[in-house]
Amino acid sequence: MITLLTDFGTEDAYVGIMKGVILSVNPRARIIDLTHGIAAQDIAQAAYSLQSAWKYFPAGTVHVVVVDPGVGSDRAILAAESGGHLFLAPDNGILSFLAHAGAAAAVRVENRTWFRPQVSQTFHGRDIFAPVAAHLSAGLDYRRLGTPADWHQLVRLDPEAPVRSNTGELVGRIISVDHFGNLITNIRPQQIQAPGGAAQERAPVFSVGSKTVSGLSESYQSRPENHLLAIVGSSGYIEISVAGGNAKHYLGVATGDAVTVR
Amino acid sequence: MITLLTDFGTEDAYVGIMKGVILSVNPRARIIDLTHGIAAQDIAQAAYSLQSAWKYFPAGTVHVVVVDPGVGSDRAILAAESGGHLFLAPDNGILSFLAHAGAAAAVRVENRTWFRPQVSQTFHGRDIFAPVAAHLSAGLDYRRLGTPADWHQLVRLDPEAPVRSNTGELVGRIISVDHFGNLITNIRPQQIQAPGGAAQERAPVFSVGSKTVSGLSESYQSRPENHLLAIVGSSGYIEISVAGGNAKHYLGVATGDAVTVR
Amino acid sequence: MITLLTDFGTEDAYVGIMKGVILSVNPRARIIDLTHGIAAQDIAQAAYSLQSAWKYFPAGTVHVVVVDPGVGSDRAILAAESGGHLFLAPDNGILSFLAHAGAAAAVRVENRTWFRPQVSQTFHGRDIFAPVAAHLSAGLDYRRLGTPADWHQLVRLDPEAPVRSNTGELVGRIISVDHFGNLITNIRPQQIQAPGGAAQERAPVFSVGSKTVSGLSESYQSRPENHLLAIVGSSGYIEISVAGGNAKHYLGVATGDAVTVR
Repeated sequence: MITLLTDFGTEDAYVGIMKGVILSVNPRARIIDLTHGIAAQDIAQAAYSLQSAWKYFPAGTVHVVVVDPGVGSDRAILAAESGGHLFLAPDNGILSFLAHAGAAAAVRVENRTWFRPQVSQTFHGRDIFAPVAAHLSAGLDYRRLGTPADWHQLVRLDPEAPVRSNTGELVGRIISVDHFGNLITNIRPQQIQAPGGAAQERAPVFSVGSKTVSGLSESYQSRPENHLLAIVGSSGYIEISVAGGNAKHYLGVATGDAVTVR
Repeated sequence: MITLLTDFGTEDAYVGIMKGVILSVNPRARIIDLTHGIAAQDIAQAAYSLQSAWKYFPAGTVHVVVVDPGVGSDRAILAAESGGHLFLAPDNGILSFLAHAGAAAAVRVENRTWFRPQVSQTFHGRDIFAPVAAHLSAGLDYRRLGTPADWHQLVRLDPEAPVRSNTGELVGRIISVDHFGNLITNIRPQQIQAPGGAAQERAPVFSVGSKTVSGLSESYQSRPENHLLAIVGSSGYIEISVAGGNAKHYLGVATGDAVTVR
Repeated sequence: MITLLTDFGTEDAYVGIMKGVILSVNPRARIIDLTHGIAAQDIAQAAYSLQSAWKYFPAGTVHVVVVDPGVGSDRAILAAESGGHLFLAPDNGILSFLAHAGAAAAVRVENRTWFRPQVSQTFHGRDIFAPVAAHLSAGLDYRRLGTPADWHQLVRLDPEAPVRSNTGELVGRIISVDHFGNLITNIRPQQIQAPGGAAQERAPVFSVGSKTVSGLSESYQSRPENHLLAIVGSSGYIEISVAGGNAKHYLGVATGDAVTVR
């Protein structure tokens, strides 16, 4: 099984071409699109998508990420293994969450044996990622792809953690906005509980844009239609939403904007 | 075989996550996307899409719909069977066309045996619909999912039928606008034939927006380029189209607008 | 294996319906989406996409194109064979690149044996292309579909070649703009090399919109961020790009606009 995560969009045939190459190498590969709607060259968004999705696939899945501003430069390509899953991505920080989580081993993909015979400078998705992923899905040991890589020497994308301000507020930010306009923050619920579980006593107050919302809701339904709410989203982070509406449009905010908690 | 119909869009990894869960339960499931482009929480559009598509799949297919404004509330989830097909959807009216067609049996999905161990309040697609669909595709009898449901007690989405006005006009409306700008109405061709088959004698005149068009065309090609036409569309309803053009843009109309027939 | 290339978009269930029909005929068919994002009825764009993608699939693949402004008219449908691949498309020029490349045989699809029993005038994708493709993928000999067609009598879409102006410039044009805003031209690198390989001596100068760029870059990385560059793209044509940016937005140009080379 192979998942694909790219910023290629779906109007061009690029994704189809990658699938053709994969199926030419391993006709029995199952290919699942994670998404091809990552904003062009947005490494952080790609890392968030992969991080939120990979664990739901069966062990042995090969996760391929081609969000690759450095294609054609001397940036490395990494193959990594974690929890029985395999990962193939440029060395641009997309996989650094695996290192943060520990227990991931990686190699630099250097052995041209499994590349397409002619490698372009513009479409490594077709010429390297696709055939290598296909061989991995057919059982190739990823350690044969190149030399071991040390996570400390690889490009890191450090997940920005919320910080505590002088006045005691927790200052996080919006790390992703989904299709429904839900604002996914980098704040985890355990970070807003006062020591000793005082969260039950005093409800957190979230500020985003020019609005505030108090307390954590149990579901999108627990506030009246068109009211703001804060909720623990499906990826385990605090989300700011509008019941039956679109928080992004309602608040006029975007990825990167601050969310503070009192 | 499993079809998926959601309002999740394709920029996020939500659909990919559902597929991961399905394939973790039943690695041999075939998954087909009906569409993930339903407007957010648009139950009527989802019902129209499902209704126009399900019969083209082989018997035994499991059709999963996650257009679910009520996720996290106490709305029920239904599993239904009709014509050898299985359906899994929130109890919000999406499946009521099956009851109108008769011969459908349904249960409320209550048995947590086939849910994911931890069920969130925000993503039942991942935690309930996906694993239950996977088990159904692997042969689980849907009647084991819960207690029988009576269609009369379920949420109904009554398809609005065209009405006859005092002046004898038939007043329908646009129920869907497709990618090409074709306006799909709720009017069936047999509804515009006068008793005794007088349709051949006097051509129907359709009014929509500020324009009228006379007669039913045999194909998009039977009128000159950029002219309006009315035609029996692929789903069996009357459609208003522009030959070689886009009727939605040409007329400036939208879903819900009236279409009258004289 | 079957590839699908349409202008249906992905908001409607049309593509899903075609897949349902295919899988009802041949449940073992593998279906790959090339793209459904071709602009409505844009035959040239569809031809470019197919041409850039088909060779990457394994021999025996059935490539289905439904970009079909003439649906319901008396335009023919063609089944063709080239290099061990099969093609199914309207006779509107989409397949004429196969004739240009030589070695393709074609038949007009006339035998209704493998059509759906009732053929609409509006959705041949569902009623003809899908079931015929499914039978082809299951081993049906395409020559049984109808009578042999002579490429000279079919609709041709002649690929426009760059022309040499009086002043010695090569005048090409933009044939496609991809998701990243890269401008794909109809100019091949060998066309801008002076006789005797003088290309190394004097760098070509490309003019597009109001800008010029000199020389061919080896990769997107070989110019500073936000600088224009010309490069041999993944489909073998010269592309105009902006390093780390979007050439379409930067230059304000579109498909069809001129690109000249000195």
